[in-house]
Amino acid sequence: MSGFVSFVGSGPGDPELLTLKAVARLKAADAVLFDDLSAGPILEYARTGADLVAVGKRAGRPSPKQDHVSRLLVDYAVAGAKVVRLKSGDPTLFGRLEEEISALRAAGIGFEIVPGVTSATAAAAVAGIPLTRRLTARRVQFVTGHDVAGELPTDLNISALADPLATTVVFMPQRTWPLLASRLMAAGLPGDMPALLAENVSTPAQSLFRSTVGQLAKQLEGTRGSAPALILYGPLAEGDLG
Amino acid sequence: MSGFVSFVGSGPGDPELLTLKAVARLKAADAVLFDDLSAGPILEYARTGADLVAVGKRAGRPSPKQDHVSRLLVDYAVAGAKVVRLKSGDPTLFGRLEEEISALRAAGIGFEIVPGVTSATAAAAVAGIPLTRRLTARRVQFVTGHDVAGELPTDLNISALADPLATTVVFMPQRTWPLLASRLMAAGLPGDMPALLAENVSTPAQSLFRSTVGQLAKQLEGTRGSAPALILYGPLAEGDLG
Repeated sequence: MSGFVSFVGSGPGDPELLTLKAVARLKAADAVLFDDLSAGPILEYARTGADLVAVGKRAGRPSPKQDHVSRLLVDYAVAGAKVVRLKSGDPTLFGRLEEEISALRAAGIGFEIVPGVTSATAAAAVAGIPLTRRLTARRVQFVTGHDVAGELPTDLNISALADPLATTVVFMPQRTWPLLASRLMAAGLPGDMPALLAENVSTPAQSLFRSTVGQLAKQLEGTRGSAPALILYGPLAEGDLG
Repeated sequence: MSGFVSFVGSGPGDPELLTLKAVARLKAADAVLFDDLSAGPILEYARTGADLVAVGKRAGRPSPKQDHVSRLLVDYAVAGAKVVRLKSGDPTLFGRLEEEISALRAAGIGFEIVPGVTSATAAAAVAGIPLTRRLTARRVQFVTGHDVAGELPTDLNISALADPLATTVVFMPQRTWPLLASRLMAAGLPGDMPALLAENVSTPAQSLFRSTVGQLAKQLEGTRGSAPALILYGPLAEGDLG
């Protein structure tokens, strides 16, 4: 009898932002494979006796090789286990599921994806700023601020990201923000466009820092922030950020 | 004693995709103001005796005026009620919160936003296709397919939307898709780019229709779909859509 893998979004960090379905999957799991980013109180929903396996990484620290994670998933499932692969936020957004899904398909193992609350909307919610607005912010876009080597991706669509009529959320932005901001401003994005740095959203360590695209570039110059973070920028009313 | 308003994301439709926080707010509410789109089994979490008030609309049907909704929120809160303003999906994405938040601020009433699972990631999850992929889909963008008059917005950033290295999700796309698709293809988006029409995601009426940008334009020509729907397009592996 073969097992089954559920890729489960754990939301931004607050256990209250888990879905009912995520809680049900955690309670039923024989094994939970989790990233450091999504650990903590959320794991308390797993049943006593379930295997809890840390496989993730924080930016800048070494992590198990991706093929090791895929093999673990397959091994558990082949042994008949119900496996939860916990992913912070929503697993379809920067969750890097491709390799793991490919491995499961190759092994003929069934899987599902349980969506979760993405940190992007959670950050907007705690700041009280909708990501869309009629007329002024019809488009929302999410990008990641670093590639596998930790550098700013070289193939970003800067023109799309410099659109002053869109709201943009940059995941894992801290180290590369000064460079990205300089490119955005060179492409015409006003330096005084409102920007919000949100760290550890929805957790006790949450911090929100309101600034502008240009100022935030100066403020983050030379820093090596490692907390889970997002930068939101765009035509967000100043008053709402105050 | 003044009340309090919680803007609560109800997720895509499946009550299991409510967050624990959404359920807690529904259970504690004296009044729940909801759109038709988010009604149904989710309202069963409200306590017996709570006021359940339908204030929303479906595309194409008349709806209460926006200022009527804002006034209702203020009136309930001024009377001391705990109010839940239920919004389908995530309230920060195309939830049109601006007017309601402005009205609450003007009346000095406290509020919070409780994020939810957006239909965009829920659709990707049921289709088994991550919205991002390293190298081929670094950027994700969400837009709405119609303005307040039901027409394709005239100020869309077609160049950004025609980027073949982004995944795009169009909310409420059906009636305007043929026009949008023709503009995207004129701007260089390949007509054979995979596209997925997802209706009534996560509900018993769910349907997924796999096609391409160009074919879907022909297939939707002249239709007037009114179900809650999304179109996803981009470099999603064909195999994953099969």
